[in-house]
Amino acid sequence: MPRYKLILEYDGTPFVGWQRQKNGLSVQEVIETAIEAINGAHVAIRGAGRTDAGVHASGQVAHADLIKHWRTDVLRDALNAHMRPAHVAVLATEAVPDTFDARFSAIRRHYLYRIVNRRAPLTFESGRAWLVKRRLNAEAMHEAAQLLLGRHDFSTFRAAECQASSPMRTLERLDVIRNGEEIGICASARSFLHHQVRSMVGSLEYVGSGKWSALDLRAALDACDRRRCGMVAPAAGLYLTQVDYEETAQDFGLV
Amino acid sequence: MPRYKLILEYDGTPFVGWQRQKNGLSVQEVIETAIEAINGAHVAIRGAGRTDAGVHASGQVAHADLIKHWRTDVLRDALNAHMRPAHVAVLATEAVPDTFDARFSAIRRHYLYRIVNRRAPLTFESGRAWLVKRRLNAEAMHEAAQLLLGRHDFSTFRAAECQASSPMRTLERLDVIRNGEEIGICASARSFLHHQVRSMVGSLEYVGSGKWSALDLRAALDACDRRRCGMVAPAAGLYLTQVDYEETAQDFGLV
Repeated sequence: MPRYKLILEYDGTPFVGWQRQKNGLSVQEVIETAIEAINGAHVAIRGAGRTDAGVHASGQVAHADLIKHWRTDVLRDALNAHMRPAHVAVLATEAVPDTFDARFSAIRRHYLYRIVNRRAPLTFESGRAWLVKRRLNAEAMHEAAQLLLGRHDFSTFRAAECQASSPMRTLERLDVIRNGEEIGICASARSFLHHQVRSMVGSLEYVGSGKWSALDLRAALDACDRRRCGMVAPAAGLYLTQVDYEETAQDFGLV
Repeated sequence: MPRYKLILEYDGTPFVGWQRQKNGLSVQEVIETAIEAINGAHVAIRGAGRTDAGVHASGQVAHADLIKHWRTDVLRDALNAHMRPAHVAVLATEAVPDTFDARFSAIRRHYLYRIVNRRAPLTFESGRAWLVKRRLNAEAMHEAAQLLLGRHDFSTFRAAECQASSPMRTLERLDVIRNGEEIGICASARSFLHHQVRSMVGSLEYVGSGKWSALDLRAALDACDRRRCGMVAPAAGLYLTQVDYEETAQDFGLV
């Protein structure tokens, strides 16, 4: 059965999250329903990141095994036609070898966390960013963030319900960049613990508002203790923006 | 009665437009209701641009005469507190002399029209941009747009219901800029006719898709005939981004 890689964009607001759940509509269910409509049989898909309820994606990746071969642009358009009016879009599809696994072949995941730092309430960005009214020092946040880079036990920044077997992760990038009233936090790693990005962002907000020094942030990391985490930033500001793979379909001459 | 200038941002999607109407909720009504709540008496406000249903603003300007003097930041926060959950925000307020009129003192209005040029349906930008699936040549659109600059009879690009006494307008800027899959069209003039920006954008789309040449666009302008207009682009892509004034409150030493 030919395997296809799907690059996906979605507004996470109305969903219970990426993963199928009994208590509401998931992104996975929307996509699997569309695939079933064009494929004639149900297939389970696997995503690179299991985004939580309210978390968005501009570059989620999933893979699916279909019954027949498709032209990639026709497949993209057919799936999109079957997903209306859900705010989920297939940006691109790619034929991949059956050794490709959206989740297990991923070598790096990139997230963006968006803070809007102003007094006025959100209009366009409502549900799409975290509104922080007190003035944040983005430079101080960026400097402190660099103390989290590298391989560490990230237990402090890990949800109690996290199912990963190890709290060890290697954080490759944590940049804090202000652009006018918006502060973007870019986080990259091979993989993240559950709530890790939101926990780091919530703690960085303490640094930006002057509640914590950079050393307080580092001490929280070193404590390996969930109770030392700052607040967990709201889901609405988080975006899975990109997933990197070692091998692409081009390398296999499949496209 | 002290006069205040309000700088406003709103998602136009749920509104019948800027102006009060019997058939639904307007942006003006939301703001006047909030003002009445803090002012103790109804006051009518006047906006710089009477945006249509579905049209957005990131820099609309209005003025209001209040009973008492307010600290400008307190006024901003008080108005915002009374406008929830409507997606209207007061970004800033300013004390202005009573010769200031948001509509009649304006010397320039700036609009942005956003096109997303891709095959996939919109997710985040649904209701916030015009999705055009066929590939547009933004450079050709920009070159053609320059033929509309200057003082002309814009009857071709004017809604039948436009109430302006003259079809003559001076177009100062009409730039078409592609940034990835997004095409932004920036239009600036002292004032615009009703539907002028959307009519020009719809006609520029004909140029971008190859249906019209630049000379066809210019011929449409010269015809001064509404029937020669291309399509009228959807309201959802239009944003009133800025209004310029000769005099600011700073000049009058009021702030």
